[in-house]
Amino acid sequence: MKPLTVNFARMKETIEYSAKVGEIPNQGLRRLALSKEDKTMREQLREWMIDAGLEVRIDDFGNMYGRRKGQTNFDPLVIGSHLDTQPNGGRFDGVLGVLTALEAIRTLNDYEIETYRPIEIVNFTNEEGARFEPPLLGSGGLTGVFSKEYVYNRQDRDGKFFKNELAEIDFKGGETNRLQRAHAFLELHIEQGPVLENEGVTIGAVEGIKGMSWLELKVTGEGGHAGPTPMPLRKDAMMAAANIISHIEQKSNVFDNDLTVTVGRLDVKPGAVNCIPEEIVFSVDVRHLDDEVRKKFIDEMKVEMQDMATDRKVELETETLWEVNTSTFHEGIIDQVSKSAERLGYSNRRLYSGAGHDAKYMNAFCATGMIFLPSVDGKSHVESELTLDEDIEKGANVLLDTMIHVTDNNEQL
Amino acid sequence: MKPLTVNFARMKETIEYSAKVGEIPNQGLRRLALSKEDKTMREQLREWMIDAGLEVRIDDFGNMYGRRKGQTNFDPLVIGSHLDTQPNGGRFDGVLGVLTALEAIRTLNDYEIETYRPIEIVNFTNEEGARFEPPLLGSGGLTGVFSKEYVYNRQDRDGKFFKNELAEIDFKGGETNRLQRAHAFLELHIEQGPVLENEGVTIGAVEGIKGMSWLELKVTGEGGHAGPTPMPLRKDAMMAAANIISHIEQKSNVFDNDLTVTVGRLDVKPGAVNCIPEEIVFSVDVRHLDDEVRKKFIDEMKVEMQDMATDRKVELETETLWEVNTSTFHEGIIDQVSKSAERLGYSNRRLYSGAGHDAKYMNAFCATGMIFLPSVDGKSHVESELTLDEDIEKGANVLLDTMIHVTDNNEQL
Repeated sequence: MKPLTVNFARMKETIEYSAKVGEIPNQGLRRLALSKEDKTMREQLREWMIDAGLEVRIDDFGNMYGRRKGQTNFDPLVIGSHLDTQPNGGRFDGVLGVLTALEAIRTLNDYEIETYRPIEIVNFTNEEGARFEPPLLGSGGLTGVFSKEYVYNRQDRDGKFFKNELAEIDFKGGETNRLQRAHAFLELHIEQGPVLENEGVTIGAVEGIKGMSWLELKVTGEGGHAGPTPMPLRKDAMMAAANIISHIEQKSNVFDNDLTVTVGRLDVKPGAVNCIPEEIVFSVDVRHLDDEVRKKFIDEMKVEMQDMATDRKVELETETLWEVNTSTFHEGIIDQVSKSAERLGYSNRRLYSGAGHDAKYMNAFCATGMIFLPSVDGKSHVESELTLDEDIEKGANVLLDTMIHVTDNNEQL
Repeated sequence: MKPLTVNFARMKETIEYSAKVGEIPNQGLRRLALSKEDKTMREQLREWMIDAGLEVRIDDFGNMYGRRKGQTNFDPLVIGSHLDTQPNGGRFDGVLGVLTALEAIRTLNDYEIETYRPIEIVNFTNEEGARFEPPLLGSGGLTGVFSKEYVYNRQDRDGKFFKNELAEIDFKGGETNRLQRAHAFLELHIEQGPVLENEGVTIGAVEGIKGMSWLELKVTGEGGHAGPTPMPLRKDAMMAAANIISHIEQKSNVFDNDLTVTVGRLDVKPGAVNCIPEEIVFSVDVRHLDDEVRKKFIDEMKVEMQDMATDRKVELETETLWEVNTSTFHEGIIDQVSKSAERLGYSNRRLYSGAGHDAKYMNAFCATGMIFLPSVDGKSHVESELTLDEDIEKGANVLLDTMIHVTDNNEQL
């Protein structure tokens, strides 16, 4: 049988709708978790799911599900991703995973196909971690990585609580609505890196996700007026932090080629031109496929940073905000993604993900796999993030074909 | 004649009132210019001035004046400072200059002294520059350093305009209320540095103010996801900025012992843990008594920073936010401050100010001088800023005595 293919023109309309909800200049999107833009987008997804004949439910983390009945009432195949974005994010990250899932369902409806198992679309809450840290709060809550109390007590930078903001946008559902069991989870996503594009490959069959650590460093020095305090008497937290950050970069460059280190957030107290900074808080994101390399780097770095702080007579506190080891997806699903791409005649390769995804936590819950699509210039988390229409269409076709094969699988994965 | 002395217990009450308006933990004060706390404090000052029999007027920059008649209607002696603070400021910076002036007036009232010239108390708007940059907007506007349009169009970080915020707190007065001419200006202030305390001296007769430059640097790199982008392909604005900041510090340490360099403000875009920073904007504050040394340092630094940016393939823009040369106060007033301290039996010395003050701009408007009091541990612009009661009392007495001598001076200064 020839593989089914989606209606791309129809899917494109949903992508364009999404691109307007939280639109910012330069084709960017700012749709922070549980914001009013997130609410608008969620309401539209709910409407689309109802129109597609799905049974919609919301759980206590705000995760949204749309269930399509199967021939059996066995554990469902779950497909989806997230609709929230970074503060200056793009139109594709997460969004494609939800909207290709919706289009796959609509295509099944077009052909009046009743799958063996039920299928559920999912939109996870606060994947990005841009508003409420850490990321993956919705999938992490669902899969028991985070307790409900922990998730509810996360605060944004304005001190607003996850729990209240979830209720505020009317997406606080019942605990009994959580996904109880799943046959498998499938997530389509943009690569967010340069590998597929550089090699001219369309479909990535994702083997797993690199381990990562998020650290928060607090440098406490001594404040004072920028003018009268002589330099040798200062305990300037900014100068100490700048030195430490430079050292982290230098060390990472010689430590291991595949290590990535990012300082994405830095806050200055008090933060005025003519005040010597008394406190600097900054984040460090460290990733590597080999968990031991990552951990060794961090251990060594901690000792060296502490020495630097001591030399400068400032205090340094290091907190681990988040840490996950490298995980490997289900071999049968990785293989099926490759096979579906082959059936459709699309170039494909296996690769690891350098970014975290909801699939990360779902992998411990049920058999899991991901499909990657090329990112132009390898960019994401920026306004100029782009995945080409032709690649999106091919990705949706691979998702549909993989889905049909996985849902018809009678065995326990 | 024995010098008059102030009623310290009465003055202490006004200091304690002020310490409550915008109180923050650890005995700090957060009373940003044109905030609701600033409004409350201004209303109290107006009440105090009216109770002291002063004629109150507000000019179009929100500068507040309280005039006490003299035997003549000659140009007045003006005394005062500012009541706004840094975001995490202390209880004394600026505040003492206004409240000692009020107490000096009250003391003249107690003794029913009619001075030769009129005396005006002044409270200048937005001295700190913590909310609206640059600092000294009120005194700079009055003395013609800044145009009215420039001052009115300053915006805070939330994009709010000076003009609207001034109207919002009901302190937008008429242009005709500006101080037209003055015989002299006197400002009492905390030293904000360690010199007086280290030498066990109570009174500083300020000779002038060190020149300073405020620069804003913008580093533009390329954003992207923290995970998948390999380190060699990045144009990480944070790493570039950290290197530049470290270099600025190293260079300043070898360039000149008396140079001070401070990076007090740094903003990251987009500012999320898992996003490579695409843009970093930070301030650099450079001060030196010798204007040529300061300018040479900045010129060399600019070239070196540009080279560093080029090496890293990021862009660097440098803007001068503010620049003033070193200024020297009126010899007659400096001398009178020393003499008044001597008359009262207080230890004293001459010194330059490393910090900017309203007296800086007033110095071009009329004969100007300042009185410095010791700062415990040299600290200011922090919650723990402290000047001891006994020093405040002595400072107020010197202000009163200097004021009486200067107002009785019949000559043009």
